[in-house]
Formats: sequence, C-alpha cells, structure tokens
Amino acid sequence: MVIGGDAAGMSAAGRAKRLDDDLQVIVFERGDYTSYAACGLPYVVGGLVADVADVVARTPEAHRANGLDVRIGHEVVAIDTAARTVTVRDLAGATTSTDAFDELLIATGATPIRPNLDGIDSDGVLGIHTIPDTVAIDEAIRSDHPDRAVVVGGGYIGLEVAEALVARGIAVSLVEARDQPMATMDTDMGARVAQGVRALGVDLHLGSAVEGFLSGTDGRVTAVATSSGELEADLVVIGLGVRPAVDLARDAGITIGPSGAIATDGHMRTPTDGIWAAGDCAQSRHLVTGEPTWIALGTHANKQGRVAGTNIAGGSEIFPGVVGTAITKVGDTEIARTGLTESEAAAAGFDAVAATAEGRSRAGYYPGAAPLTVKIVAERSTGRMLGAQIVGGSEVGKRIDVLALAVWKATSVDEFSMLDLAYAPPFAPVWETAMVAARLAGSTI
Amino acid sequence: MVIGGDAAGMSAAGRAKRLDDDLQVIVFERGDYTSYAACGLPYVVGGLVADVADVVARTPEAHRANGLDVRIGHEVVAIDTAARTVTVRDLAGATTSTDAFDELLIATGATPIRPNLDGIDSDGVLGIHTIPDTVAIDEAIRSDHPDRAVVVGGGYIGLEVAEALVARGIAVSLVEARDQPMATMDTDMGARVAQGVRALGVDLHLGSAVEGFLSGTDGRVTAVATSSGELEADLVVIGLGVRPAVDLARDAGITIGPSGAIATDGHMRTPTDGIWAAGDCAQSRHLVTGEPTWIALGTHANKQGRVAGTNIAGGSEIFPGVVGTAITKVGDTEIARTGLTESEAAAAGFDAVAATAEGRSRAGYYPGAAPLTVKIVAERSTGRMLGAQIVGGSEVGKRIDVLALAVWKATSVDEFSMLDLAYAPPFAPVWETAMVAARLAGSTI
Repeated sequence: MVIGGDAAGMSAAGRAKRLDDDLQVIVFERGDYTSYAACGLPYVVGGLVADVADVVARTPEAHRANGLDVRIGHEVVAIDTAARTVTVRDLAGATTSTDAFDELLIATGATPIRPNLDGIDSDGVLGIHTIPDTVAIDEAIRSDHPDRAVVVGGGYIGLEVAEALVARGIAVSLVEARDQPMATMDTDMGARVAQGVRALGVDLHLGSAVEGFLSGTDGRVTAVATSSGELEADLVVIGLGVRPAVDLARDAGITIGPSGAIATDGHMRTPTDGIWAAGDCAQSRHLVTGEPTWIALGTHANKQGRVAGTNIAGGSEIFPGVVGTAITKVGDTEIARTGLTESEAAAAGFDAVAATAEGRSRAGYYPGAAPLTVKIVAERSTGRMLGAQIVGGSEVGKRIDVLALAVWKATSVDEFSMLDLAYAPPFAPVWETAMVAARLAGSTI
Repeated sequence: MVIGGDAAGMSAAGRAKRLDDDLQVIVFERGDYTSYAACGLPYVVGGLVADVADVVARTPEAHRANGLDVRIGHEVVAIDTAARTVTVRDLAGATTSTDAFDELLIATGATPIRPNLDGIDSDGVLGIHTIPDTVAIDEAIRSDHPDRAVVVGGGYIGLEVAEALVARGIAVSLVEARDQPMATMDTDMGARVAQGVRALGVDLHLGSAVEGFLSGTDGRVTAVATSSGELEADLVVIGLGVRPAVDLARDAGITIGPSGAIATDGHMRTPTDGIWAAGDCAQSRHLVTGEPTWIALGTHANKQGRVAGTNIAGGSEIFPGVVGTAITKVGDTEIARTGLTESEAAAAGFDAVAATAEGRSRAGYYPGAAPLTVKIVAERSTGRMLGAQIVGGSEVGKRIDVLALAVWKATSVDEFSMLDLAYAPPFAPVWETAMVAARLAGSTI
C-alpha cells in the first residue's frame, strides 16, 4: 500500500508490481493527478510548456493499466502501525474506511511554506506547488492581466517563478529576507546570481522581510508590505519552498529524523516494521557530512521510490544518499551547486579552503563562449573536495555533474586538476574552469 | 632548453621560468608561431573564427616579455645526449650552430599523415595542421571559389574540416576507408555519427580507399580516385590525423614506446637522463588498461608541459595518465567518448558488457530537448565502468565528463546509476540518460 501518487509513490508502486505481479498494490492519492513533475510547473506558468497536462508523466488510468489500484481523491488521515491499517477518507463521497496493509510506503511529499501573515488569504496571493495552483496562476494572468507581480522568496522556486512571470510580460518584484537570492550558495556566488536576476529585469529586494498583504475592498491583493516598504502588486506568488509532509507519520508514532523528515535507512525503511518512506517526505544521508539530510527533489524521489519498490517486492537495492546537487536557471544565468558550500562546510566542522576561478564555456576564440565562475571548497588537511558551485551563462550549469561525482568520490583537488575531461574548442578551453579552480584550491593547502 | 614552441613546449617553458626565475630557458621553434591551438584551425576555415591570429594564445614576443628566449625559425636537427648539446639550423640564415643544455624537453608535436599517393602534390591538395596550412585553404577558397571539395579521412579532423567547408558554401564529399566515420567509436555509435554527417549535407563515402589524385594540365587537382570511383574536386583537404613526431628523438637514441611516441614516466621524463618529453610526441599511460598509449590533444599537451616545467624547475608534479576522453561536433551532432569502446575493451582482454540508452537532454515537456544516445561499457565480473560514448544533439557532448571521471575512478555501473547528478527540467530528465545506460548495463551482469 502506498500513500501518495506522485514521483516516489508511483515509482515504488510500479517497480514493486513489475517485480512481483502477484502483489496487490493500492495507491491512495489525495489529489486528482499522479506522477506529475512539480519542478516543471514554473515553466507552465511561463508559457514554455503549453499544457499543464504535459508535466504529467503518467495518468491514474495509465497506472491502472499496469495493474495498480490507484485511488485518487482519497486522503489517508491516520495510520495504525499496530493494527496495520490506514484510515482513508474518500474526498468525493466524504466517507471514511479502514484498509489493511502488509507493507506501507509513505510518500506524502512536501507541503509548501505559506507564512501566517496578515492578508495571506487575499485573492491573488497564490502558491505554486500543485497543478491546481498552476492553473490558478495561469487563469489569474489571463483574466486579470496583472501589470505588477511580487514573488515572495528568492530560492529555486522563487527565481523560476520570477522568470516565468517576466516571460508573461509582467513587471516582477522579488522579495527575499536574506541578503542574497539562492541562499543555498555562498554569498560571493549569490551576488552573481543577483546580477543575473536583475539582468532579467526583476526588481530585486534583498534583506527585505514580507510583513503582510494589503487588499482592496473587493478582497484582491493590492500590495505587499515589507520591512523596506510597500510594493504594489496585482498578483503575488509565494515561492518559499517546501517542508516535508510528515504530520501523518508523526501522528502514527513513526520516527521523524533530525532533518525534520521521516527517518529511513538506505533501503528506505523507517524504524517501524513494515513501514517505508520515500521522496520529499523522507530523510536521506548526506555523503559528505555522513549526517541525515532532507532534500526535496524529483530525481531523488524517483530513485528512492524505485529502491523502496524493489525492496518491498523482496529484492534488495540501496539508495546510497545524496551530495546536495542542484541546478536551475534564471534568464541567461545558469546556477548549480553540489556538496557543501564554504559556509556549510564551516558549519559542519570542516577546516575548509575555497578557491574561485573565472573562465569561459568554450575556447576564447570560438564564438558564443559564455562566462562561468566555479568555486570549489576542499578540506584543508586532505585536499578532499567538499563542494562546488557554478554561476554562468549558457551551457555551464551541467558542468556541476563531474564535480558532483568528484565530491561523491572524495576526490582531491590535486587529482581533479589533472582529470581527462573533454576538450575541443566548441566545448571548453584547454583548461576547464573547474580544473583551474581545483588547482587554485590545491595551491592554498 | 625546449624543442618546440607550441602548447607543451611553451607551457613547460613558462612554468619552469615562473618557478625559477634564474633558469635560462631557450625555446627553439621551427615555424613562426608559438602557443597556437591547432584544434581551432578548422573553425578558422569555417569562418567561425575571423582571424587565424585569434588561435594564437601567446606570441613569441609575449613569451619573450616573460623572460623566455624564444627562437622562431630555428629547427633542431640533432640531439647529442652524451655531449648534452643540440644542433640547430637557423632557417632564415641557413646557418647551423651547436647549443649546450642541462635539461632538454622534447615537444616536437605531431606530424600530419600525408599518404604517398599518386598526385598528392597537385595544387589544391592541402593539409590542415598548421597556421600556414589554414591560410592556404582559406586563400584557395577565396581565390578559386571551389564548388566541390573532397575531405580525406572521417576522424575528428576530417569531420571538422567537412563542417567548415560546408559552412563556406562548398559541396563536400568525405572519403573514409573504414565502414564508419569516427573509427574511435563503436560501429553502432559510428552509424549515428554517419547520420549526423549526412544530415549536414556531406556526401559520405564509407569503406572507400583513396587511391590517388587527378589533376589538369595546369597541375590543379580535378578529382580524387577512390576504390569506389572518382569524385570530382576543386579542393582536397587531407584530414587523416597525425602521428607523433619522434624522428629527432629516435635518431638520438631516446626510447620510443610501444605506442610509437616517446617513452615517458609520470614526471614526463624519458629514460635518458636529463631528457624530457611532453605533448603530442610523448607517450601517456592509459588508466583503464594500465598500458602505454598515445593521444594527441591540446589539453594533455598543456598539462604534460606544465608537469614537465614544474619538475625541470625542481618541483614535483605527476601527469597521472589519460582515459581517452574526446569530443567534437559536426553540424548539430555532438560526439564524445571516454575510456574504452566495446571493441577496444575486447581487444584489451576485458570480458565486457555494454548497454545503450536513448534519452533527451531536458525534461520531455521542456522545449528544445535534444535526443542523445549513451553507450556504457563495463567489466562483467566487477561492473567497473570501462568506457562510454555519447552521440546526440545540442548540449549533450560535455555530459561525457562525469562518465570520464567515473571511468577514471573505476566506478561500478550500479554506483553510477544512483549518483546525485543535477536535475531540473531545462537541463535533464529525472533520470539522466547515462544513469539509465548504467542501470541497463548493471542489469545484464
């Protein structure tokens, strides 16, 4: 039995059924959709993806055709771990039933952060976490023709929504409480991100806390009150990210880890016998610190779901953990990170060095070479790479992957600086910028 | 003392001088240029690089300003390893002198392969290895307005020249003796390259050996005779690649390795005391086979030169070896490889498995997603990744880098399939194609 019909839940359900066709697999999904890419929703708002249905990888019907008993509009409201039952509310009929399970996967995902501020329920203050959220933003743009939008939050989702609204011809202000956008980057790299956001035409308000939302007599939002003044708004999108949806698990007495997500081992088992967790509600191990961590990302949800499905079906597979790799773009600026930032490394107790190199995506003489900056963080005593960050132009973000593997493998900066990475004038200069950064980091040790 | 003023020689000279300003560093260069990017020359022909001077990273004057004694137009014609002298011919004055050295770096580079065929010296049968070669091709195009060109050779240089000539509006035929272009790829991947070459409008003749060149009464080439018939040509470019330029070293009794290049250790020392070699004339170690190998590539030349310079100046640095990573593009098709192909793995005595996955560069619903195919070769007994190949559209070639590090680190396919690589809709699907290929390879073991 699976609670939650998105990436992790459906990956697990499908995998388990493929491995053991005799398994009865029931999936309860509160909403109307399965297997949709929440990370694609900003691009629907921006008009790059024409139809919100395009982000649905597989519909309930398609899953049912594969032998899965998918029940949409069904919310699990309680788990009894002793009786091995769940209490399920059918949202359409408003009836409640009790269903027994042998094995239960909790894949309840994450909940968008929606601060409890004055006026947050005004018309036109929207979130962007689900397909209905996305449809609501799109309809608001089509019907109300907003001139001015305010995006609250300067992380991944906030930047992606800001880009999307700019693409729709709306004047966008972005409000971020911290002094930089993308707080998951070091401040020096965050400053480069800020340049990219401003280059897109976004009015960026940093170090500015949202205090409330003002509305007119019709109940529609008119402005956002911030610690640095009021910003007029015909539309507000809250893009503050998410927290793990663990209330159901916590109420059932299932262990919540120090990251705030459901504690799991590498098999995606919780400490409670027969109960598994995967996806945005589940904890992972960070391979650099060795500590529990929580990172909500579709690619992890898919892998964890697959691993849980394999193991529930009697196989054996391990989700090894994460190194915190992430990527996005805002306008022409690509942004990527992996491992620990310099400040995260310090917070984790590492004596770390860092070095930054500026370079280009192609040979200097080859047209279209984009600038990129690579920062590498390494352990001082060993030279082991702890993390890396990239900010730059076109075709630079995915260069984080080789750095992600280097961090994963605890590669030293000296070794990295001599790797055999692909070189040809349309693709790189003779010294990849990341290798220069590694060499610089090595020279400081 | 350094013989050869291109990437390896000048990297070494500059590095040694920076580390020890008291060193007297003399560089003999036969031609008129230093530190130029031979790999950029096709893009000069194609008009993407406006001026051939743009591919010169640093002129003799600039090197001299850094304290290096750079003597262009000076050819070293003999090395006396016992007397520790070189015999140098001043090509301008046609005088010869003898110069003593303490340490000697041989960085003589590579020689283009120019087959000894009837008519190869006809006007209009040109090579593309040096700046004068490139100027000659450009001048032939400007003055003779060729309608039809034949490119001989379907490897990296042949494909790049074919693309360049197409860009200049010339109808191009490409003749390759083997049954596929890019013989450094497996045949299944080579077939995809062939599609890309043909999509560019190149008339591709595979399994076709060049037998000679026909010319008119004016001595100008008119056609290329091949085993599959005559091809009319107003211009012929020989793009058969290079072999290491080792005659000078061999004549001096310096050991030539089994790869045909000068034997070196990780410090870039030859077995002869006080004699070093780096760049396209020097042998490397292949980190997958552990055997000597020879790969002519600017990025290795730069690294080997730097390592040699460090060590000559009394420091200690190691060039660890190579895994055979390479990349190029032809039209919209990007092509990359690392490690061993399936056939190379078999030839090296590995019991190998291979798996191929088809995917896209971005989430399927995100616009501009390019197709890509990734093939992974792994050792059957251990799952260790031995090599990988990529053919696809825009922004896929550099994805070889993470595979290059995986091969370098002897990562298993199972481990690779669970890596934390960067995911967001504009950059990748939730499962990177390379991870799918790794998983498939793992499932066959």
